[in-house]
Amino acid sequence: MTSHVYKHIELTGSSVESSDDAVRQAIAKAAQTIRGMRWFEVVETRGHIDADAVAHWQVTIKVGFTLEN
Amino acid sequence: MTSHVYKHIELTGSSVESSDDAVRQAIAKAAQTIRGMRWFEVVETRGHIDADAVAHWQVTIKVGFTLEN
Amino acid sequence: MTSHVYKHIELTGSSVESSDDAVRQAIAKAAQTIRGMRWFEVVETRGHIDADAVAHWQVTIKVGFTLEN
Amino acid sequence: MTSHVYKHIELTGSSVESSDDAVRQAIAKAAQTIRGMRWFEVVETRGHIDADAVAHWQVTIKVGFTLEN
Amino acid sequence: MTSHVYKHIELTGSSVESSDDAVRQAIAKAAQTIRGMRWFEVVETRGHIDADAVAHWQVTIKVGFTLEN
Amino acid sequence: MTSHVYKHIELTGSSVESSDDAVRQAIAKAAQTIRGMRWFEVVETRGHIDADAVAHWQVTIKVGFTLEN
Amino acid sequence: MTSHVYKHIELTGSSVESSDDAVRQAIAKAAQTIRGMRWFEVVETRGHIDADAVAHWQVTIKVGFTLEN
Amino acid sequence: MTSHVYKHIELTGSSVESSDDAVRQAIAKAAQTIRGMRWFEVVETRGHIDADAVAHWQVTIKVGFTLEN
Amino acid sequence: MTSHVYKHIELTGSSVESSDDAVRQAIAKAAQTIRGMRWFEVVETRGHIDADAVAHWQVTIKVGFTLEN
Amino acid sequence: MTSHVYKHIELTGSSVESSDDAVRQAIAKAAQTIRGMRWFEVVETRGHIDADAVAHWQVTIKVGFTLEN
Amino acid sequence: MTSHVYKHIELTGSSVESSDDAVRQAIAKAAQTIRGMRWFEVVETRGHIDADAVAHWQVTIKVGFTLEN
Amino acid sequence: MTSHVYKHIELTGSSVESSDDAVRQAIAKAAQTIRGMRWFEVVETRGHIDADAVAHWQVTIKVGFTLEN
Repeated sequence: MTSHVYKHIELTGSSVESSDDAVRQAIAKAAQTIRGMRWFEVVETRGHIDADAVAHWQVTIKVGFTLEN
Repeated sequence: MTSHVYKHIELTGSSVESSDDAVRQAIAKAAQTIRGMRWFEVVETRGHIDADAVAHWQVTIKVGFTLEN
Repeated sequence: MTSHVYKHIELTGSSVESSDDAVRQAIAKAAQTIRGMRWFEVVETRGHIDADAVAHWQVTIKVGFTLEN
Repeated sequence: MTSHVYKHIELTGSSVESSDDAVRQAIAKAAQTIRGMRWFEVVETRGHIDADAVAHWQVTIKVGFTLEN
Repeated sequence: MTSHVYKHIELTGSSVESSDDAVRQAIAKAAQTIRGMRWFEVVETRGHIDADAVAHWQVTIKVGFTLEN
Repeated sequence: MTSHVYKHIELTGSSVESSDDAVRQAIAKAAQTIRGMRWFEVVETRGHIDADAVAHWQVTIKVGFTLEN
Repeated sequence: MTSHVYKHIELTGSSVESSDDAVRQAIAKAAQTIRGMRWFEVVETRGHIDADAVAHWQVTIKVGFTLEN
Repeated sequence: MTSHVYKHIELTGSSVESSDDAVRQAIAKAAQTIRGMRWFEVVETRGHIDADAVAHWQVTIKVGFTLEN
Repeated sequence: MTSHVYKHIELTGSSVESSDDAVRQAIAKAAQTIRGMRWFEVVETRGHIDADAVAHWQVTIKVGFTLEN
Repeated sequence: MTSHVYKHIELTGSSVESSDDAVRQAIAKAAQTIRGMRWFEVVETRGHIDADAVAHWQVTIKVGFTLEN
Repeated sequence: MTSHVYKHIELTGSSVESSDDAVRQAIAKAAQTIRGMRWFEVVETRGHIDADAVAHWQVTIKVGFTLEN
Repeated sequence: MTSHVYKHIELTGSSVESSDDAVRQAIAKAAQTIRGMRWFEVVETRGHIDADAVAHWQVTIKVGFTLEN
């Protein structure tokens, strides 16, 4: 890890299943265009309510990935 | 959404199952007296420990609902 | 609870299963050396990404326990 | 001001005009049911974007009002 | 505490005596309309100055109470 | 909104007119290269002072936009 | 800007017109005694409510100015 | 209060008596050189420990005073 | 103070008397096992409410002590 | 600076030398793909420990650059 | 330290050498007009970038000094 | 890193040389009693001023180490 430089991006994923699944959705989507993702950090957990119940979870994460040469 | 005014309240739900379920419990309870809930945001996740294990999760959320005419 | 004094420690647990399970792992490990744990509070939720997916969750908690006489 | 007790509520107002106007909308709406409002504090300024422009401003305020006898 | 849901409100009490007394004033006033208060947390401690001395203390607290069935 | 993933970017716009106009300038500029912007949040409001008056406002916003398929 | 040292002060301006005007009022007043003001940053936006409307805006800013030789 | 501009300063007072008294000490000292103090806000409460007991309290406050014409 | 290294711990003391006394209780208890305590900082002030009054104050402090050779 | 719009990115640089050098490494790496960088702000300073000593410093910075026409 | 009252000011120093040197520059400059400085705390570390390298470091510190009789 | 649990402690190191050296001093001292330190994070950078110059730097770090079996 000594000589790497990392860039961070912020994403919001959503899921009708769970807050953890919203994180997984965000990472899966980001993987279509970003290589070298190494870690994430949860920034915010929110959600929409419909008919007096959680309709879907929305979790915002910061993702760090290696700037490749 | 243009002309609505929202009011926010803060609730703590608890659950022996999971942190996500504590959120659902808080919303279900609030639905008995509040109409028009639209979104929530997790403010704090805590819990009680009994016999060296999580006895129940306590999650505090902020809930926004429409002020109706 | 009137006359107790509590001490707090900060721990990070990890799990390949879920964020909630990472909390349980941290508490189970701490129970090997600490008695009287009463509550926890989630301080930070992070994780490692491998092959474009969550490899494991890392959740940092603050744990309060009674200073015994 | 010596012997009053104040209660605070949190509201989000919206406006297509300006961020200041969103504050005024929230206060005007709250005035329909709350008496004795004395001050506000801006908590968050957000907005929706439509067709590459600000569609409306959404400003969240905390409002303090006197608990009357 | 397992199955309760708590609601939080925010109050500011004032006192010419002390900061602790301002907390007690806020709770005493709130008790006229709210049942089941369980805990409080100090959010902010301020005060007014008159003639180069503290005229009264103003302490803002968050109070949690049980939503009764 | 159920299945979208959002990416957030941070921008600073400036304006000699007003703080609101600085937000609009940032969004107008970003629209030249980004599609699908949905919301913004004000992160910081600053400005430069020249000749004892506000020379221009500088407002930093976080903008969320849909990651398209 | 290489060799300057800046000092910061904190001011609250007020205006019946707008939040931006409260910033301008604070800077105009400070200009009577301070030279070399370069930038400001909004720290807090509050206001007083009278007769269910905004009576005046109160905006707190931090101002940086050059320590002259 | 409509047309005033306030300046804020930050002070730390100390007292062997109590945290409230440390606030009073700071205000009494500042009154020797500053006129027009109106309010204070507690920023930090610390203290020194000597021989396993509180030797003195140190409370940092922000004080607002009117800029006079 | 030049060559010392300090370690910090976090404690919560409680008191039926006052918030200041809760700090003193925490330090007195910690003194049974820790030598060389030098300073404290108040992190959080909370309390329990019973019968519509403060039952006891709970104050969390961070305490610094010298790592002895 | 009147009419520019800035974009911010977040980077983590690392160095075995010093925390300042980790900032320089991040900027040097980013310069391979980004033009018009104007300022940075340190967000977080961390590091890895190996054999009871700092193995390398990891400093996260936010960098602002001009969006060119 | 028992009976002193401290005042705090906020300064930004700059240096082409290092972040530590920017702190020293701010203190050296302030020493021309302020007596009795006792401690400082780093509030923010920023810098300007020119030609893809750090042109100078800008470090903001809070400085405490004794209010003399 | 999958199955480890980490504990965090907070330390303040000091140095007459530099802020980076204060970090190294804290880690060297802690190494006398703690095994398995893996990372640190800078929490606060302060210092004492004597004769209008930095007398020594005081840097507070959080250190994470592996709880061994």
